[in-house]
Amino acid sequence: MAVTVLNTLLVGLLATGVEAVSNGLALTPPMGWNNWNAFGCDVSEELLLSTAETIINLGLRDLGYQYVVLDDCWQDVNGRDANGKLQPELSRFPNGLKSISDQLHSKGLKYGMYSSAGEMTCARFDGSLDHEVEDAQSFASWGVDFLKYDSCYHMGRIGTPQISFNRFKTMSDALNATGRPILLNLCNWGEDYVHTWGMSIANSWRITGDIYDSFTRPDDLCGCDTTISDPFCIAPGTHCSVLFILNKVAAFADRSIPGGWSDLDMLEVGQGGMTDEEYKAHFALWAALKSPLFLGNDLRDMPASALTIINNPAILALSQDPHGRSVTRVRRDVQGVAKDEWGMGETQVWSGYLQNGDEVVIFLNAGGEDIEMQVTLAEIFIPFGPGGSAPHVKSDWAVHDLWAHRMSEETAEALMAAATDERRAAILKDVNWYNATETPFEEGLRNNDPRLFGEKIGEVKAGGILKAPVTSHAARVFRLRRIAKQGETFKGKSIDRVAKDEL
Amino acid sequence: MAVTVLNTLLVGLLATGVEAVSNGLALTPPMGWNNWNAFGCDVSEELLLSTAETIINLGLRDLGYQYVVLDDCWQDVNGRDANGKLQPELSRFPNGLKSISDQLHSKGLKYGMYSSAGEMTCARFDGSLDHEVEDAQSFASWGVDFLKYDSCYHMGRIGTPQISFNRFKTMSDALNATGRPILLNLCNWGEDYVHTWGMSIANSWRITGDIYDSFTRPDDLCGCDTTISDPFCIAPGTHCSVLFILNKVAAFADRSIPGGWSDLDMLEVGQGGMTDEEYKAHFALWAALKSPLFLGNDLRDMPASALTIINNPAILALSQDPHGRSVTRVRRDVQGVAKDEWGMGETQVWSGYLQNGDEVVIFLNAGGEDIEMQVTLAEIFIPFGPGGSAPHVKSDWAVHDLWAHRMSEETAEALMAAATDERRAAILKDVNWYNATETPFEEGLRNNDPRLFGEKIGEVKAGGILKAPVTSHAARVFRLRRIAKQGETFKGKSIDRVAKDEL
Amino acid sequence: MAVTVLNTLLVGLLATGVEAVSNGLALTPPMGWNNWNAFGCDVSEELLLSTAETIINLGLRDLGYQYVVLDDCWQDVNGRDANGKLQPELSRFPNGLKSISDQLHSKGLKYGMYSSAGEMTCARFDGSLDHEVEDAQSFASWGVDFLKYDSCYHMGRIGTPQISFNRFKTMSDALNATGRPILLNLCNWGEDYVHTWGMSIANSWRITGDIYDSFTRPDDLCGCDTTISDPFCIAPGTHCSVLFILNKVAAFADRSIPGGWSDLDMLEVGQGGMTDEEYKAHFALWAALKSPLFLGNDLRDMPASALTIINNPAILALSQDPHGRSVTRVRRDVQGVAKDEWGMGETQVWSGYLQNGDEVVIFLNAGGEDIEMQVTLAEIFIPFGPGGSAPHVKSDWAVHDLWAHRMSEETAEALMAAATDERRAAILKDVNWYNATETPFEEGLRNNDPRLFGEKIGEVKAGGILKAPVTSHAARVFRLRRIAKQGETFKGKSIDRVAKDEL
Amino acid sequence: MAVTVLNTLLVGLLATGVEAVSNGLALTPPMGWNNWNAFGCDVSEELLLSTAETIINLGLRDLGYQYVVLDDCWQDVNGRDANGKLQPELSRFPNGLKSISDQLHSKGLKYGMYSSAGEMTCARFDGSLDHEVEDAQSFASWGVDFLKYDSCYHMGRIGTPQISFNRFKTMSDALNATGRPILLNLCNWGEDYVHTWGMSIANSWRITGDIYDSFTRPDDLCGCDTTISDPFCIAPGTHCSVLFILNKVAAFADRSIPGGWSDLDMLEVGQGGMTDEEYKAHFALWAALKSPLFLGNDLRDMPASALTIINNPAILALSQDPHGRSVTRVRRDVQGVAKDEWGMGETQVWSGYLQNGDEVVIFLNAGGEDIEMQVTLAEIFIPFGPGGSAPHVKSDWAVHDLWAHRMSEETAEALMAAATDERRAAILKDVNWYNATETPFEEGLRNNDPRLFGEKIGEVKAGGILKAPVTSHAARVFRLRRIAKQGETFKGKSIDRVAKDEL
Repeated sequence: MAVTVLNTLLVGLLATGVEAVSNGLALTPPMGWNNWNAFGCDVSEELLLSTAETIINLGLRDLGYQYVVLDDCWQDVNGRDANGKLQPELSRFPNGLKSISDQLHSKGLKYGMYSSAGEMTCARFDGSLDHEVEDAQSFASWGVDFLKYDSCYHMGRIGTPQISFNRFKTMSDALNATGRPILLNLCNWGEDYVHTWGMSIANSWRITGDIYDSFTRPDDLCGCDTTISDPFCIAPGTHCSVLFILNKVAAFADRSIPGGWSDLDMLEVGQGGMTDEEYKAHFALWAALKSPLFLGNDLRDMPASALTIINNPAILALSQDPHGRSVTRVRRDVQGVAKDEWGMGETQVWSGYLQNGDEVVIFLNAGGEDIEMQVTLAEIFIPFGPGGSAPHVKSDWAVHDLWAHRMSEETAEALMAAATDERRAAILKDVNWYNATETPFEEGLRNNDPRLFGEKIGEVKAGGILKAPVTSHAARVFRLRRIAKQGETFKGKSIDRVAKDEL
Repeated sequence: MAVTVLNTLLVGLLATGVEAVSNGLALTPPMGWNNWNAFGCDVSEELLLSTAETIINLGLRDLGYQYVVLDDCWQDVNGRDANGKLQPELSRFPNGLKSISDQLHSKGLKYGMYSSAGEMTCARFDGSLDHEVEDAQSFASWGVDFLKYDSCYHMGRIGTPQISFNRFKTMSDALNATGRPILLNLCNWGEDYVHTWGMSIANSWRITGDIYDSFTRPDDLCGCDTTISDPFCIAPGTHCSVLFILNKVAAFADRSIPGGWSDLDMLEVGQGGMTDEEYKAHFALWAALKSPLFLGNDLRDMPASALTIINNPAILALSQDPHGRSVTRVRRDVQGVAKDEWGMGETQVWSGYLQNGDEVVIFLNAGGEDIEMQVTLAEIFIPFGPGGSAPHVKSDWAVHDLWAHRMSEETAEALMAAATDERRAAILKDVNWYNATETPFEEGLRNNDPRLFGEKIGEVKAGGILKAPVTSHAARVFRLRRIAKQGETFKGKSIDRVAKDEL
Repeated sequence: MAVTVLNTLLVGLLATGVEAVSNGLALTPPMGWNNWNAFGCDVSEELLLSTAETIINLGLRDLGYQYVVLDDCWQDVNGRDANGKLQPELSRFPNGLKSISDQLHSKGLKYGMYSSAGEMTCARFDGSLDHEVEDAQSFASWGVDFLKYDSCYHMGRIGTPQISFNRFKTMSDALNATGRPILLNLCNWGEDYVHTWGMSIANSWRITGDIYDSFTRPDDLCGCDTTISDPFCIAPGTHCSVLFILNKVAAFADRSIPGGWSDLDMLEVGQGGMTDEEYKAHFALWAALKSPLFLGNDLRDMPASALTIINNPAILALSQDPHGRSVTRVRRDVQGVAKDEWGMGETQVWSGYLQNGDEVVIFLNAGGEDIEMQVTLAEIFIPFGPGGSAPHVKSDWAVHDLWAHRMSEETAEALMAAATDERRAAILKDVNWYNATETPFEEGLRNNDPRLFGEKIGEVKAGGILKAPVTSHAARVFRLRRIAKQGETFKGKSIDRVAKDEL
Repeated sequence: MAVTVLNTLLVGLLATGVEAVSNGLALTPPMGWNNWNAFGCDVSEELLLSTAETIINLGLRDLGYQYVVLDDCWQDVNGRDANGKLQPELSRFPNGLKSISDQLHSKGLKYGMYSSAGEMTCARFDGSLDHEVEDAQSFASWGVDFLKYDSCYHMGRIGTPQISFNRFKTMSDALNATGRPILLNLCNWGEDYVHTWGMSIANSWRITGDIYDSFTRPDDLCGCDTTISDPFCIAPGTHCSVLFILNKVAAFADRSIPGGWSDLDMLEVGQGGMTDEEYKAHFALWAALKSPLFLGNDLRDMPASALTIINNPAILALSQDPHGRSVTRVRRDVQGVAKDEWGMGETQVWSGYLQNGDEVVIFLNAGGEDIEMQVTLAEIFIPFGPGGSAPHVKSDWAVHDLWAHRMSEETAEALMAAATDERRAAILKDVNWYNATETPFEEGLRNNDPRLFGEKIGEVKAGGILKAPVTSHAARVFRLRRIAKQGETFKGKSIDRVAKDEL
């Protein structure tokens, strides 16, 4: 197998249509906001437009949060119109959907919507199953740029990858046939091994049941993750913790590729069920794992601490790194780790190659006590050769803490309180915040923009060990930068080869 | 995912045909009696009609037990007649089946029958597979209101949801085509992920093998629930304990919706294999989990204690709550719980939202010793926000014990011994018993009828802990009622939103 | 579910074609001999005919061992003839196969053969896949009475019950179409949930990989039964121990019905890899579990001890009991049982209803030490009502040891050494051995023939406990007979009801 | 089941087309070199031809390494040409592919290539799915002798054996239709039970995810082999250790047959991530398990120690033994074995029959400490009869150490340093090295060539125990040779029978 991405050749490949799904979208993980986690069915034009304004005001658009996504419950309760066309609930969307799309586009944002590959949506409005062509045309006519496509009420059309693939491919083909580039965000909760075929028809695919606002707590409503496992239980569910999702994706984290991403579900940052450290860990791992990054909280009314998490450019630079491959897990320890209040207790180390040769390393402490974690360079670089055979192990590495330059809460509060565009611009300028609209992450990384590299906090010598204290229910996020020795020619596999830069 | 029900819109939805199965039946879980658990194949007109009379006499019809269901073994052993039509065994049903139906209807009851989506029924009479249209017509012609549709001898037509769905959908379509509303009670024991598609074609679907009259004892004949689990074993079986069924359904308890219910199988109350406390727990959990409630004992010859379980209106009001969603499990503890004689030992807490904003909470002690159980408000209300973020946690709550006003055994004995309708009416009037024919549960709940709310036994303060002693192999059933503070405006998610009242 | 058999109605049912597979064969488990376990591919006319003679001489035919089965490797290595017809290897079968069949029939025996539902047989001779009609005609033309139909080299036609069912049904239909009654012995090692559909097209179906001559030793080549289980491994295999097979079948032991039997594979008694006690346990459990009973050793050269196992009429009467339902497992204990040399250690209690109201109870000690085992009447009779609610618990029971009257080894040696029919007849007459040709088991049981009931060794009082010492790697086999009290009218469910005699 | 190979009849069978896949290739496991493990996408004509020269120079061709295989990334990035024909990247293959093939053939080597049964190859070049006929013709036209056929980007066409079988069979048929014998090396990582059908359409089939250069370390990217197993995880992956692969194949090691082999993936010997003892164990087990043996390192630049592993004729004689059946595992011990640094700890004993009646026995110590391992003759010969019933147990056996005559590193270094063919030939002649081109392994074995039998180091007496110290992370490889007693006639099942020489 050894799924491989060909960075250097990527432009050429895309030009010739060799990428998986052929719409050319999502070369880095899509970013934006979705109303579901905070608002559920309580949707309206006002919600979307006021949130859009907040996204711009707080500088989030210019950090890459482009998509504003309207989830379930937008339909008229009477269902399709006389012509079989889906119609919005007019009391909530009095100006129609095209109007929303136009306004978002005029502000440099993109518009996302929702349907389900079933007879009904999850909230029991009309689904698109067996109506794919007409519904794709509706979406295109409304100026939609993104479709979250769910899997409720599937009429039994699951059970083999072939059955599910065919069901979803119908919509993929219908969207392509409209001529409008519409990012397809497939949501079948990991069923039927979607990680093996999602990339052929979609730009992302969910890999578990719905996230909920908890860091480690197991819940029966998430995929049968009870204390006594039941191998027959199949129920992706709605109450999946951050830890559960990480453990689920670990085995196929390497499947994400530019244009097709494993979706760990939308973010809970700012929703109130987790601590600040938990939200930081949640956010950084979602970024490094290349999940689509969709904010899920009420942006118009959030704690300053939440803003200073989601606007950290050093973390976002992990998400938008042009290399486009996820970190993978190089250690997981369960034995000997103190349990937390929910009986969970484990530590994990994730690492991954970045475009410029840097290596991201994340220490996750999902146990019940503060501890010092450590990992050898040999383990960090196992994908380049086990047992210390990777050439990287022979170099010294500078360790950068990517949370070092987090925005202060005072600044965030000032920003949220600011009444005018000018004031907001001044605040952001004062703290020299990052603007990816002006300087795309790829350019900033190429130019070593210090705002993307946190703070150097130490070094690991060749053959050495990276150590750091990590509090309970928190993560440390490091960017390791190789310290070139004078006259040295480093020839790691990933740099010397045209088309095989890893594994 | 986040399967959601739209209460406020429900009438509208039903009017426009958006609900899953489109027959409009079972908006709350169906209730009645089925002969199988007590009588097996020993069926007859006399059994059905004498039982129907008992149902009425004891006030059970007026508590909601409407369906009288004739299970397997009603057929003539010679099979279909010359025209291919199913025919009853005349020695057992000398007046035919339409006669039974007419008599039941004349008494305000409904008539249920049985067939199997196989070449044979489980008792090896003729099955309806590939005879769906003609058999549905027979059932309609006999005035049938309810079909229990089994899955024995399926001719290999299982293995993917698609295969099973198609097999059962044929009967669903055939029943609809008759024009007679017939509640479809699908029984494939949870195979092929029926919880993901049952609601599209049926009003209920079984989720395990057959129940047997034991509270916790594992038995090889139930789904491979042996002490050493075998992940390859598939055999839903016939000896499933109450505890096994609860553990099976926990992961998808949230799938039941008005019109489509997970079926935990018929009740064993009064059969003799469990204690009074076990039967109380069994009955209350079936009600709160929104299982169809089908009495399975010989009603004409039962202990008074059994009657006082099945006729508790405060428990039945959980089943028939108009909100129509199951409790879900918020805690399960196995570690540290004393084992019972069968080696089982665990405690569980189930909770769920009720239409009027009350919250039902059930403490189940399936361990070997009496203990005090407890749960925080934060845990109880986790579906409204984990980590204490649910607004409900900030209120005080009154705790009502729903078994407090259980009918006395003396009254029950008198009722069963009473010779005339007048005497029975007098007894029920004396104890002010509930009559849902006169006052539907929805109305009683709206009017705070005290007979539906048990007895207040205490309070839990905001941010506090609900505690109660629970004896071994028993459950405590509480209804928590929010104590509104003066001038307070409570804005829980479930109340403020039109279409998303949970999760 | 509750699969039920209708004893009283059975004749009627069979007359009207309601049984599953419609060939009317195997109303009790088939018995005979198959060459594979002892001889593999070393087959010949001489082997079959000399073994047939031994079967008759030793009185085995008259105990019910009727089928002489030629397994794989009988074909000409050049495959089908010019007309596509299978042909035997002439050097091994110089007179053809019809000649063998004729000779067996003339001796009151039946003839079985072998093929595979694949492109090749397991030994890589031509398979019958896509040649079913022509091959069934060949078998019929050769006078075949029994077909063992294997599943090697299936060309990927497995994976859902539907796929496998269709593949095997083709041969079932083809055999029926010949007009000759041919017992179909399906052998797909339990794949694709054959226990749910085998009875619709075959008279028996294997439920595991091949047996091997060991009592408990786990082997990698049997269904991934390693010490660390691998839930992804599917490989029914060839080295399955007696204990493995019992544990596999326990969950669906109740699926066997007259006409269709779960096949635990052929017997290893007398092959040399197990002790005498292990062989006794193996044999008795196969009999009580209603497996087809096919001797697998070299009958012409076996230890006397082996003959005295396979010819015990009290055990065979369990197999051939007209009730036709398997014992089921009512206890399995793993905790606290001493491990044997292979690291296995458990005890099991199996029990089951017999036609005359007796109950068979088997104590299996698969642990490393001699122990006293026990079981309450309440547990024994759980299928008639858990928790002691079965009426049987209120009776006293006489306990009969079914191995008490095992033939002496001296007699067996004399019988094997006898040179003439007369001498053999005299020996059998001297010890009053059982002859089922003269007195079918059903008749002997009805008449309380003492040879079928072992020896009474004690009693268990009402509500009491059956106890017995059981040596390591052995089983005790008891027949419990109810002691009727004067004037008592016993009304157990199984006796009072026409059509539901269990569960 | 009991899959059986018919040695004596093999020639006859092949002549008549009864073998599984009908191309007549790979009667012993194929041997060669593949660029992937060392070079990934960094492929070129120069790499292939210079490696081919090294293969010849070092005497590897004459030990059987015949196939030179070009893996993924050979294509032009622009994909198919105007006629839909695959085309190589000309900058890397300036003389085209036929030229490479011609040069390899002229040197007595064979040419292998790569494609995938998907829309893309794993490295995202054009795949052959739905282009099988044209691509097979391309391969044939280029003189290809071997096709590694991968399964990336399969468009959802997995999930049942039938779906996968049909997908791969299309290429098998297309290759056969070209008229050129092309060995088909199927690579779907064990999905869809390929071990049950691979042999019907291919000469080998992979059984796990990709190997990586580690002996025991579990890695999330290999098939969910985490410390807490997840039965729902399906992801064959890319980081599978030697130990993982052995444990995966153990349950169906007996499925390999002449013409069709379970593929344990290419070798990592010489890559740098394992110790010398680990590489020796890896290599010997791959040989004894009859995996295809494809060197995966850079042969032009390898440690001398690696050469002395891969050129050991006594080990290669296990691989190329004409009997053609894998060793199977007769013991696996986990309890009580010291854990290694990755938390793994177990010992295994593998044994198997060889054509001349010898028995290979391998002691694998995958634990954390040096120990003495042992196994009884009874266990070694369990496939011939459990419990000591195999006749082999009654003989004495000479024990030969197959690593005894490993080439010295000095010799290997001289050989690699030698500048001329003459010098190399002289070195090999000096040490009397084996040349299978001159003396095929079958002939050498028949003639008891001492170079194939290592060194006798002791004996095991009848009924005795084989013991040997084994260091941590190492294996001992023994060939047991029966010591015939004077006048004895040994009649083991495997020798006396024409067509059933095992099980």
